[in-house]
Amino acid sequence: IDNDEWSIEELAQSIINGDRKALASGITLVESRANKHRKKAAQLIQLLLPNTGKSIRIGITGVPGAGKSTWIEAFGKKLVQEDHKIAVLAIDPSSSLSGGSILGDKTRMEELSHHQNVFIRPSPTAGTLGGVHRMTRETILLCEAASYDIILVETVGVGQSEVMVRGMVDFFLLLALTGGGDELQGMKKGIMELVDAIVINKADGDNKVRATKARNEYRQLLHYLQPATKGWQTKAITCSAIKGEGIVEIWELIERFIEEISESGVMEDRRKSQSLDWMKQMIHDRLFDEFMNIDGRKEELRRLKEGVIVGEVSPAEAVETLFTP
Amino acid sequence: IDNDEWSIEELAQSIINGDRKALASGITLVESRANKHRKKAAQLIQLLLPNTGKSIRIGITGVPGAGKSTWIEAFGKKLVQEDHKIAVLAIDPSSSLSGGSILGDKTRMEELSHHQNVFIRPSPTAGTLGGVHRMTRETILLCEAASYDIILVETVGVGQSEVMVRGMVDFFLLLALTGGGDELQGMKKGIMELVDAIVINKADGDNKVRATKARNEYRQLLHYLQPATKGWQTKAITCSAIKGEGIVEIWELIERFIEEISESGVMEDRRKSQSLDWMKQMIHDRLFDEFMNIDGRKEELRRLKEGVIVGEVSPAEAVETLFTP
Repeated sequence: IDNDEWSIEELAQSIINGDRKALASGITLVESRANKHRKKAAQLIQLLLPNTGKSIRIGITGVPGAGKSTWIEAFGKKLVQEDHKIAVLAIDPSSSLSGGSILGDKTRMEELSHHQNVFIRPSPTAGTLGGVHRMTRETILLCEAASYDIILVETVGVGQSEVMVRGMVDFFLLLALTGGGDELQGMKKGIMELVDAIVINKADGDNKVRATKARNEYRQLLHYLQPATKGWQTKAITCSAIKGEGIVEIWELIERFIEEISESGVMEDRRKSQSLDWMKQMIHDRLFDEFMNIDGRKEELRRLKEGVIVGEVSPAEAVETLFTP
Repeated sequence: IDNDEWSIEELAQSIINGDRKALASGITLVESRANKHRKKAAQLIQLLLPNTGKSIRIGITGVPGAGKSTWIEAFGKKLVQEDHKIAVLAIDPSSSLSGGSILGDKTRMEELSHHQNVFIRPSPTAGTLGGVHRMTRETILLCEAASYDIILVETVGVGQSEVMVRGMVDFFLLLALTGGGDELQGMKKGIMELVDAIVINKADGDNKVRATKARNEYRQLLHYLQPATKGWQTKAITCSAIKGEGIVEIWELIERFIEEISESGVMEDRRKSQSLDWMKQMIHDRLFDEFMNIDGRKEELRRLKEGVIVGEVSPAEAVETLFTP
């Protein structure tokens, strides 16, 4: 990703031409935390901007064991059969800590990963959740410039990662476990009001009856909750990724969703406010990073926080101290 | 609130002594947006800090028409009978825009407002929601220093105000309308997972049956949602503020709540993380305010936002521009 290999203009053109190696280099540039790379990355994205925004961006979340990779494999295979080019990205805040990555293990989607029209990118393994967020948003744009027309963003759902995914996709899908109702209680706070569909996977064999029962309970519950997208009642449906059942229906549902919210103007409004929210977030992150980079600041903040915790210093006084030169 | 009237030390001492005029002056100081007042306000709070933290902080939200003021009047009268000193504060982001205030009209709680052990303070009428938030948090501390042992924070529930109230109270209560179930659908997104109790008011006369039905529906729904407070199942109960029915029960519920979460350590953890969150929020607000105060910044930001909206500038490039000297 250094100057001697590609100029930013060449890199941009190669990405637009569909060169996978160029796309991978571009993403590595975007994921770099070095200051000099950040400016170049912004340049690159600026050059690619006219070629972005034309994909359908789909977020997928679900607890471990819900079968996300099997589902993405089944869903992706269906899409490539229809001549779509798909990119699979991941947000995994836990990988920032462990150095691992939910999509690092490519065997999880073996068939899909070998398809020429599929691009799979593991989660960035460095940086804060805010950083991972920025990188993923920019990676979406790069993939769009490379003509991927469906972008899947997968998350393991740690911490605030679902709120972030909601802020970067058009359609957000929750893959839920089958079961008789108890699973609903373990549902993460607010998650049902963030998603556009709850997909109860593994609706096959002995599980089918329980999955249908769970779906009906979700439907009842959703009836009382606020939908995530204006004008769209959040759906609850069953499928079996392993048997390939219900996958076509989900794609049709997403197509109908995109059609409806495009017509109503909700799609355009959402994308605009997503961009502005993102910009605002970046400004705040940048200001805080600069503030924290001042010598001795981290130590000072740690000390003041301790004072606040034991009740010796009020938060207001702590902030006054921090901002007094 | 100027030097010649009170020294900060005198003001602090008078507040601790229970002088209502001093308390009002202190709050006015805290609500001032002038820089010189901010430092003094931080000093004042620092002096009062050892006398704070001993109240029960209760948040109350509900749509207009849910009967918040009647309920607070009934609840407050019950508390003063038990020799509590109560302060009623308000968060009303809409008043920042209109200059009005939800508690400005004191006739709303006429009996209560004349009681010697009751202090009612309308919402600050100036500033952003973040500012209103800061002022209200500091006003809570001032009231505590003045020996008010129960603080009620009322909000009209506009925008993010409930999230803010949740971040400053121990117990959060939603006053809901009676009805046959349709009301649940109008419920604000995420609100049921923010509160510790849903109180269905106006459970009297013809409404009683419907209120009971609504309560049962809420209970069913709450069974599936995540509780706001660890170890506490969110309750749904009925009451009639006008008839004074169910008010004692709510107070007993809150007492039990405080007892349980104090024993489990959740109370202490919550207060600590509330203070740290508040501190973090103040740092971010301050950084952003300083950033925006630079000459020409507002205009530059407006222009860049337009570029982002029409798709000419990427958010990343816009932020680079803002941060390039």
